[in-house]
Amino acid sequence: MPIKLQKESIIEKVQELAKRRGFFWQSAEVYSPVGGFWNYGPLGLVLKNKIISSWRKWFVKDENAYEIETSNILPEIVWIASGHVENFVDKIVECKKCKSKFRADHLIEDILGEKEKLEGKTTEELTRIIRENKIKCPKCEGELSEVRTFNLMFPIYVGAYEEIKCYLRPETTQASVLDFMQVYRTQRGKLPLKIAQIGKAFRNEISPRQIFMRMREFTMAELQIFFNPEETKYEDFEKLSNYEVNLLPVELRQKGEENFVGISVSKALEKGWIPNEIIAYYIAKVFAFFTEELGFRKDYIRYKELLPEERAHYAKVHWDLEVYSKDFGWQECVNNAWRSDYDLSRHQKFSKQNFSVFENGKRILPHLYEPSFGIDRIFLLLLVNSFREDKERTWLQINRKFAPYDVGVFPLVSKDELKTKAREIYILLKNDFNIFYDESDSIGRRYRRADEVGIPACITIDFQTLKDNSVTLRDRDTMQQIRTRIPDLPDVLKKFLNGASLETLS
Amino acid sequence: MPIKLQKESIIEKVQELAKRRGFFWQSAEVYSPVGGFWNYGPLGLVLKNKIISSWRKWFVKDENAYEIETSNILPEIVWIASGHVENFVDKIVECKKCKSKFRADHLIEDILGEKEKLEGKTTEELTRIIRENKIKCPKCEGELSEVRTFNLMFPIYVGAYEEIKCYLRPETTQASVLDFMQVYRTQRGKLPLKIAQIGKAFRNEISPRQIFMRMREFTMAELQIFFNPEETKYEDFEKLSNYEVNLLPVELRQKGEENFVGISVSKALEKGWIPNEIIAYYIAKVFAFFTEELGFRKDYIRYKELLPEERAHYAKVHWDLEVYSKDFGWQECVNNAWRSDYDLSRHQKFSKQNFSVFENGKRILPHLYEPSFGIDRIFLLLLVNSFREDKERTWLQINRKFAPYDVGVFPLVSKDELKTKAREIYILLKNDFNIFYDESDSIGRRYRRADEVGIPACITIDFQTLKDNSVTLRDRDTMQQIRTRIPDLPDVLKKFLNGASLETLS
Repeated sequence: MPIKLQKESIIEKVQELAKRRGFFWQSAEVYSPVGGFWNYGPLGLVLKNKIISSWRKWFVKDENAYEIETSNILPEIVWIASGHVENFVDKIVECKKCKSKFRADHLIEDILGEKEKLEGKTTEELTRIIRENKIKCPKCEGELSEVRTFNLMFPIYVGAYEEIKCYLRPETTQASVLDFMQVYRTQRGKLPLKIAQIGKAFRNEISPRQIFMRMREFTMAELQIFFNPEETKYEDFEKLSNYEVNLLPVELRQKGEENFVGISVSKALEKGWIPNEIIAYYIAKVFAFFTEELGFRKDYIRYKELLPEERAHYAKVHWDLEVYSKDFGWQECVNNAWRSDYDLSRHQKFSKQNFSVFENGKRILPHLYEPSFGIDRIFLLLLVNSFREDKERTWLQINRKFAPYDVGVFPLVSKDELKTKAREIYILLKNDFNIFYDESDSIGRRYRRADEVGIPACITIDFQTLKDNSVTLRDRDTMQQIRTRIPDLPDVLKKFLNGASLETLS
Repeated sequence: MPIKLQKESIIEKVQELAKRRGFFWQSAEVYSPVGGFWNYGPLGLVLKNKIISSWRKWFVKDENAYEIETSNILPEIVWIASGHVENFVDKIVECKKCKSKFRADHLIEDILGEKEKLEGKTTEELTRIIRENKIKCPKCEGELSEVRTFNLMFPIYVGAYEEIKCYLRPETTQASVLDFMQVYRTQRGKLPLKIAQIGKAFRNEISPRQIFMRMREFTMAELQIFFNPEETKYEDFEKLSNYEVNLLPVELRQKGEENFVGISVSKALEKGWIPNEIIAYYIAKVFAFFTEELGFRKDYIRYKELLPEERAHYAKVHWDLEVYSKDFGWQECVNNAWRSDYDLSRHQKFSKQNFSVFENGKRILPHLYEPSFGIDRIFLLLLVNSFREDKERTWLQINRKFAPYDVGVFPLVSKDELKTKAREIYILLKNDFNIFYDESDSIGRRYRRADEVGIPACITIDFQTLKDNSVTLRDRDTMQQIRTRIPDLPDVLKKFLNGASLETLS
């Protein structure tokens, strides 16, 4: 399997690898696949589930959050109250001649190249820009229609003969807001109260693209923090007050600055870049999750604050956590929005239920701050940023604990004595490790196969094993090998997967 | 909190408890909830996720299955090929006067009481029965329409201006079938090949009812076993050949028998009740999962084989695993269907792709056997069957390892020294156990609160603790207590949660 160094982008190579080895592929590929729907294969799903279980450890268990699971289908009234029926729209334009449809802002931007100024423009304003600049259909030069809105939610009719109009949720937030009082009453009963959700969301994107970057069905992990806006202190803040993060705040963006600043969250709080301690704490915690837990390079992670005209209809303050990769540039992976009491007050109004709580001697409507993670994007950026190749081989230099298998077990050659020994080792390790057993082809090819899916360690059983009960242990990244005695393997492997180098283990 | 012994059914009590303590409640309850949609609260979700992780251990890891995750939305062609567009229907009838709608079979059954004979009847036959028996609208005595079919799938239109017709999946099976070749090629490459999926399914049920028994959105866990139908032996069969299960086969049902027979799967195979070793193995394995892992009483679990007219359109052999409870009687929890090569051959035909594999010297189309688990039903039946009450208290006698918390930690009374000690114990146990910390109200009330959500063990810090560093450890089921030294707690608790009695631990 010689590696050809081609001029493809990394993402094309990752996509080819993903399909060939079973990380991901398009849904319903044997038919004509519909854009924006993807399936996880066995290797990809292990990685995805590891990201999710790390997230649960960091944001549910460690944060004493209450995790709930809510239905994907919710009645229309929920989405009228939340503002999604009115505001969760793209603006599109149609060619009167060839009937092709385009996102109005993308079309104008492609032709006039002035993206920044289009944010927040109304349909009338966009139509005027099209007319004034005499923009025609890029496919057939035909005349374009007025700009119209297109709602990105999928409607669903529930009941015999389509009786109740519902929507597939475009985010999980609303269900946490609706269930806020249920959780408040049945659980802790005081603020801040944290509700976590991991689940699917669905958006009828007009132009799904870049694999997981714009999907029509995707996995979100959200933490909703309901807090008292009059309480400016947060008890956990001290733990992370000196933590340094990369920020690009509105204040700098408005001065034309494009580079982030490395700064501790307490300093950012002093400067007024971050409004309060609870938000400062989560700005630090989410950053730490990317660098310390997932293993992204620190200079590849930044927060970009959104300008007022870029923010969603509900957001008072909004920071995008972005991850850098060579192919995609900076990509939003976590939406961090201070939604004020917008959602609770809207549902209070529409449902005529009381969502206020009694704190510090009076009734208040809690505010909501929400870091909302796009799990599939994080997955893809982990793969893309761990992709390595040289003349000899391709490998995924992925954080050892997120690899789809922990260890490869290989008999050096196809001899019965070696295979028997290899099976023994397989059984010794099976309960505690996720093993890739392989006995076909040359050992070199097997190392290549293990490397390209990111298996951090390979154990090879050779003729010396039969003499002294030792095996070789090989590091994916350095290709270094040491000899280890079989009884020591469980312990040595555990240390290696936790980050120890081979030198310290030999 | 004195317990009133009322004449309510167990399920009503469980539902009240579930809502009050945070196991489950209806979706969008602050508005008018739409029937058939439910949310899991924090306690319920822990239990549900424990069922799922046990399932993964038993049916993915131990079975060397390949788990995949596929999209909920699939194009219409998939459901035409699978037969769902044509066959996944209920037959309904409408009142011409008051416009009420009814499931035709339910309506006829309610009036004539002859359910068995209605299975498999066409719309014309049902219309004739209604006409011949002069059945009128039970609400207004109005005349009824012809019987019509109503498809239970939710259509979804994807793309701007509703371009591509899709459906929300009513089962996860089809995606595993579509991806069979992807998994076969990228992974093991030989039969039997096992694909696992855990995910949501959606059905537009006309009359959702009995909480989780008929939902419109629910969680399935499915194992698809693709095997060579000419291969009658299965290597793992020996492990479970003597395993005894409760069977009610078609042969006995046709003789009017209503009670199951306890029989080993090898005997059932000899009698011809089970067609082959691979199915016999999974009949035993699924039964063992319910009794040994989930902890259901053995006499509350049975397999009922479906009569030809009861079977789905794709099934060659079909066993329902049913769980008994006083409120619901026997309820199907796992659908075990030998789907022959129906699905693969249909998709082969419609997609014009080749799904055959080369085995034993020739090309064959694999057969599919599939145990398909309804996770929400299993969850509810675990709760209902573990519900206990006497004059003093209510408790959930749930398998210790499935409880929503492992242990309660309580200072006996609200004194600072006791609270400080209790926090120390909390910190000692926090990483390895899921703790319910409670310091309000009398200790008696706190035990009641812990009992009613099924917390298996409670630790109480009292004045003796301050003298000799020992605490009391209380068993939920027996209310017995022993004293344990604090440093021994992690070890003692671990053994207790694995099933040890207090006597063996004191």
